[in-house]
Amino acid sequence: MIFIAGSVLRLKQAAVLGAAGFVGRHAARALASAGYQVVGIGHGTWLRDEWREWGLSEWHVSDISVESLLTYAGEPEVLIQCAGSGSVAFSIAHPAQDFRRSVDTTLAALDFVRLHAPGCRVVLPSSAAVYGTAERMPIRIEDPLHPESPYGVHKKIAEDLCRSYGRTFGIHVAIVRLFSVYGIGLRKQLLWDACVKLVQGEVEFAGTGEELRDWLDIEDAAALLLTAASQASADCPIVNGGTGQSANVRTIVEGLGRALGIAAQPTFSGTRRSGDPVGYEADISGALGWDWRVERSLADGLAAYAAWFQQDRG
Amino acid sequence: MIFIAGSVLRLKQAAVLGAAGFVGRHAARALASAGYQVVGIGHGTWLRDEWREWGLSEWHVSDISVESLLTYAGEPEVLIQCAGSGSVAFSIAHPAQDFRRSVDTTLAALDFVRLHAPGCRVVLPSSAAVYGTAERMPIRIEDPLHPESPYGVHKKIAEDLCRSYGRTFGIHVAIVRLFSVYGIGLRKQLLWDACVKLVQGEVEFAGTGEELRDWLDIEDAAALLLTAASQASADCPIVNGGTGQSANVRTIVEGLGRALGIAAQPTFSGTRRSGDPVGYEADISGALGWDWRVERSLADGLAAYAAWFQQDRG
Repeated sequence: MIFIAGSVLRLKQAAVLGAAGFVGRHAARALASAGYQVVGIGHGTWLRDEWREWGLSEWHVSDISVESLLTYAGEPEVLIQCAGSGSVAFSIAHPAQDFRRSVDTTLAALDFVRLHAPGCRVVLPSSAAVYGTAERMPIRIEDPLHPESPYGVHKKIAEDLCRSYGRTFGIHVAIVRLFSVYGIGLRKQLLWDACVKLVQGEVEFAGTGEELRDWLDIEDAAALLLTAASQASADCPIVNGGTGQSANVRTIVEGLGRALGIAAQPTFSGTRRSGDPVGYEADISGALGWDWRVERSLADGLAAYAAWFQQDRG
Repeated sequence: MIFIAGSVLRLKQAAVLGAAGFVGRHAARALASAGYQVVGIGHGTWLRDEWREWGLSEWHVSDISVESLLTYAGEPEVLIQCAGSGSVAFSIAHPAQDFRRSVDTTLAALDFVRLHAPGCRVVLPSSAAVYGTAERMPIRIEDPLHPESPYGVHKKIAEDLCRSYGRTFGIHVAIVRLFSVYGIGLRKQLLWDACVKLVQGEVEFAGTGEELRDWLDIEDAAALLLTAASQASADCPIVNGGTGQSANVRTIVEGLGRALGIAAQPTFSGTRRSGDPVGYEADISGALGWDWRVERSLADGLAAYAAWFQQDRG
């Protein structure tokens, strides 16, 4: 609360579940920038200075359950459910735990809202992994869902729960199927691994280099999650979160190499990883219909990532 | 174990989760008749004489988790996952609890098998509720799934988990989408309610009387679950469990009236219950392809049910 000349100005409240994660922290910062007082709940070792820098007014290290949300979440107008492992490999190694992290947390969020915050708008960042291997590009929302990993299955299940709570209980929900989100601070996945290899002088990469992904900067993704909150309804609208354009892995690695000032040309082993879809490109007409726009180009994003990587490495 | 002339004959072991329920107890008896030593796990107040009569060699009152399965389930060759609320109304009143009863138990069963009994065949009795309002009859396995209640959504989610564990971990699974299962011992749903009303002299029933359902006797259903166990594979085959013929509610109520020796003709209020699909009729080509057959006609089933009802009422 802010006290101004004797009156009390109550800030809009928001909750971010899994706020210490890559998507969660950017969602928290975007909410704070939009004037929300943001409570974060989840796991992760985070110092006070860090979570305050990411826009949180409170950070609670806790499992996510109806009980913990009752204790910590306040009376949010917006809840963004970013909790989950975020890793296909983890979901294969520990499927039941991945389920609990992704699905049980979503169920807890929805049931908390049903019971205690019925006006709250819930946003689920889902994943392009729910589509599995697409039969055509760009991938549209109504295309069939054939997830190929427990991670993708669990995201699909979390989506089903959102729709169910919208239909049966009138909860306001929206889903954003994020494609390949990247950005400053992400210390895993292709961009990170590629930077690490390139600065170590390694030039041999797995795969064919031709694998297509739709790369979306995390700040654009976070802005889309906020837009989704404003569009949440009992009909549970779903949009893709991408740029609508794909780039192959070779382009990414070469772009990072140039940005890092490394002359060597990357080579690729040529073998496809089984279960790794060849291509992803999002039909983003839904998000564009919400007046959301892609603000950062891939070239700018790669340059910023490489600059951050070099600084981070000292 | 049975000791014969100094040698040990080890019976095949099976586990039934939710064995105290209507489907569970019949599944247990069918497994016992087929020569399995059957362990039951779940909730329900059941005396030793009762559960032994239903073919169980052990009955453990317990939540269903990987831990409790490790403790009680032995080394099953077959596991039939009958746990769940079995009630659309309950799922609307208590969606999170319904989810835990239907989905968490399925996940526990699958993860137990993945970790500790990889050769075990898992059968999930699912429900026609996963289809929602069908666009055409008979309903085929590949028809779209649009469940309309949390109950149906949770069954669909349990199915998704079975397929996921088959695909990713090679677990042998099979799914039977049961339509309107009825039979001796079922003290709820249409047949029970109709018998109670008819013997009390009430003749006014809700609905139009024209609602079509595909009625399957519970013993035929249990036999199909056992057949499904023999067909379980990592591809997770799915079949409908019905007769392939539907009968409307009026036919059921009038048939019960005749069997109970009640002359009065039932009347119907004429109002449709919202969210209650008008018709269900199963395409059972999958089950027939497994050489399963419907053994009991609806007329015989209704007569047997009415006779049991009168005896039960004393």
